[in-house]
Amino acid sequence: MTIGIGLLGLGTVGAGVAAIVASPQGRHPLVAELQLRRVAVRDLQRPRPINLAPELLTGSPEAVVDDPSVDIVVEVMGGLEPARSLILRAIAAGKPVVTANKAVIARYGEEIAAAATAQGVYVLIEAAVGGGIPIIEPLKQSLGANRIQRVSGIINGTTNYILSRMADEGAAYAEVLADAQRLGYAEADPAADVQGHDAADKIAILAALAFGGSVPRAAIPTAGIDSLDARDVAYAAQLGFGVKLLAVAEQVGLSAEGAAELDVRVHPTLLPKDHPLAGVHGVNNAILVEADPVGRVMFYGPGAGAGPTASAVVADILNIAGIRQVERALPPGAVAPLDPLLAGRTWRPCALVDPAGTHHRNYVRLRTTDQAGVIGKIGSCFGEEGVSIQSIVQFQPSVDAAEGAEIVVITHEVREAAFRSALAAIEALPDVRSVAACLRTL
Amino acid sequence: MTIGIGLLGLGTVGAGVAAIVASPQGRHPLVAELQLRRVAVRDLQRPRPINLAPELLTGSPEAVVDDPSVDIVVEVMGGLEPARSLILRAIAAGKPVVTANKAVIARYGEEIAAAATAQGVYVLIEAAVGGGIPIIEPLKQSLGANRIQRVSGIINGTTNYILSRMADEGAAYAEVLADAQRLGYAEADPAADVQGHDAADKIAILAALAFGGSVPRAAIPTAGIDSLDARDVAYAAQLGFGVKLLAVAEQVGLSAEGAAELDVRVHPTLLPKDHPLAGVHGVNNAILVEADPVGRVMFYGPGAGAGPTASAVVADILNIAGIRQVERALPPGAVAPLDPLLAGRTWRPCALVDPAGTHHRNYVRLRTTDQAGVIGKIGSCFGEEGVSIQSIVQFQPSVDAAEGAEIVVITHEVREAAFRSALAAIEALPDVRSVAACLRTL
Repeated sequence: MTIGIGLLGLGTVGAGVAAIVASPQGRHPLVAELQLRRVAVRDLQRPRPINLAPELLTGSPEAVVDDPSVDIVVEVMGGLEPARSLILRAIAAGKPVVTANKAVIARYGEEIAAAATAQGVYVLIEAAVGGGIPIIEPLKQSLGANRIQRVSGIINGTTNYILSRMADEGAAYAEVLADAQRLGYAEADPAADVQGHDAADKIAILAALAFGGSVPRAAIPTAGIDSLDARDVAYAAQLGFGVKLLAVAEQVGLSAEGAAELDVRVHPTLLPKDHPLAGVHGVNNAILVEADPVGRVMFYGPGAGAGPTASAVVADILNIAGIRQVERALPPGAVAPLDPLLAGRTWRPCALVDPAGTHHRNYVRLRTTDQAGVIGKIGSCFGEEGVSIQSIVQFQPSVDAAEGAEIVVITHEVREAAFRSALAAIEALPDVRSVAACLRTL
Repeated sequence: MTIGIGLLGLGTVGAGVAAIVASPQGRHPLVAELQLRRVAVRDLQRPRPINLAPELLTGSPEAVVDDPSVDIVVEVMGGLEPARSLILRAIAAGKPVVTANKAVIARYGEEIAAAATAQGVYVLIEAAVGGGIPIIEPLKQSLGANRIQRVSGIINGTTNYILSRMADEGAAYAEVLADAQRLGYAEADPAADVQGHDAADKIAILAALAFGGSVPRAAIPTAGIDSLDARDVAYAAQLGFGVKLLAVAEQVGLSAEGAAELDVRVHPTLLPKDHPLAGVHGVNNAILVEADPVGRVMFYGPGAGAGPTASAVVADILNIAGIRQVERALPPGAVAPLDPLLAGRTWRPCALVDPAGTHHRNYVRLRTTDQAGVIGKIGSCFGEEGVSIQSIVQFQPSVDAAEGAEIVVITHEVREAAFRSALAAIEALPDVRSVAACLRTL
């Protein structure tokens, strides 16, 4: 039994998928059942990273979707359109879809899932988050017994590479970014990565799976690393913390109507050095799931790259191929409904809470005059808002006293609104020149 | 639609399963479809960790398996018999089985899988390895596109707890073991854990899934931590290594007949401090999978305990429940065959290679006289066998020179047979009092 694959896109991931399908030896025997039937490329003339029979290639992605010999449509072209329309077209044709497209799924996941449910086809997305790390499938199929409390992760390899080098070398953000671009770890336009949007797409997807309902992507508070100062990375290290760009989704309540109330956000975060995520370096990703009764489980591995991402794409193809084998053995006319776990069906509404009401630990760096009594005044401002402080440490940025002092405050877990009020009062103090940095802390 | 669960055993794991089923709120909605129908316990009079209706309990495990209201049989009693016979009895009755029993699966997995295939039922074993960590399901369903090169893991929480404390406190093995027993982290009879047999059971199971064929459990070379000297833990730390009990399964070749040739073993191992597994402390487990094209992925979490293990058991139950929902929607008479991925069907023979032909890095501690020239003689013995050395370091066990010296050698990756020959020659040197310790090194 052969299963026909149609590829939309033949970039690094598409070529990686084609390479796996072309050399099934030593892999699961189902891989040998897969056959590449049609491949849509943007430019038929461009040289390819992989040799394919020219008759497989077409400039028309619609032709791939519509090709009757294509059983599974694999979307690895990226971008919002025409990817979204092509996924919907495949679903409408009753064809299962495998996609690595986090942007489309984060924004149109609900529309796509509804169409897939109506048509009774799977849309699988393992490659959309965490590259080669199995995380979507475990969330769908291995952790269903749990009440998930929190999913937090390092899910953008570019920023983790930059942060790792900033920490190791004490280098400035802009300098490391330029180097990362030269080495191919960051794109020419790095905005989606360094501003946190890519991580926000991914945490929206993880949150929907972990908490059972889709999350409004546009409403996720997102801060990137593009304004991160190397000084804060250095101070954090001195205080026993590493700095990582974390994406977090946490259930903070349950509404009277049964909706999961979620605090979902992306921001640079101080992690204690012994935190499981603190040891994740370079372009690696890791996702930590905290749940009852399992406790803390973590999934770690390469978060991007042709090989890892193709591994995840082909895993999804194999899952559909396995089910296809089952379906083909059914009597004529029998249509197996979707497995509710693999389909990742949502099962309750989810809502984002007002960030002002959430609770966090914070790191604040203040530039102040170098005068006695400043720390006391800052402490009083926090105290008046009920913001409990774990530590206040004065750092001297230079030997020149005229430059003033830098004071770093780490709070306990406090209500965001109270913290912001205290910060406004501190900013108004005559001895305080500026709030130079404000980061979350785990 | 309700799915009837029959529990064989109501120890900590069984009670954990019952607790999840009894409180489905906030978990995947399929949990609410599960109903505990019958529970076999050894002693009907004993007080239970969980309150169950007395009519659910029976002293006869056969009655649970045979009960027509039981759709899925969950074996959490442990031990080889009657667990094996009960699993086979359930299969014969056409009932899917979920088991946490690594000892039975490692020894009778082939027999059980053959029976399950013949009857067309699933036998799922997520809880048998790694406690709450999803590792079985990812190996079966998420990594099939890969050629797996190596699976290595810290898969025994008791020994990892002991080793972590030995490293942190410089304490002796026997002392920490006694403490672990007092705290409930080690059993009164700790042999299965500390001698490495539990880890060997688990690596046999992982190897079968990773490499596609069953592995002869009894032939796995197994060394535990029961003769580990605190001194070696301390020396390793000084040389930049941690000591962990590793279980490793590695493909080293492919026979002319297509059999995967595997090097599978369990032994205390020196890990470089920056190795992903080196940071796994206490009762946690972690499994590292190295494969092409995914690279290195790691799965980390609590390796034992009622909650984590029950999480894995219920995950398997949910997977079967999801498929049961699909099956119930089929036309009368239609029987869906097993999904080849979830069934974990084997697909090629596997054979263990002769350990003498395998290649490893080694750590050796020698007790010698404290005389000039000893290091040269030791180096020569290694050199004559072509064993390449990375470092030779002399440690002074005490200030008293009469006690002699301790010399630690770390080799490069060398052929086991050559290493053993060299060691025999070294042991015969007049200046060498004994080969005091010999450990593997990554």
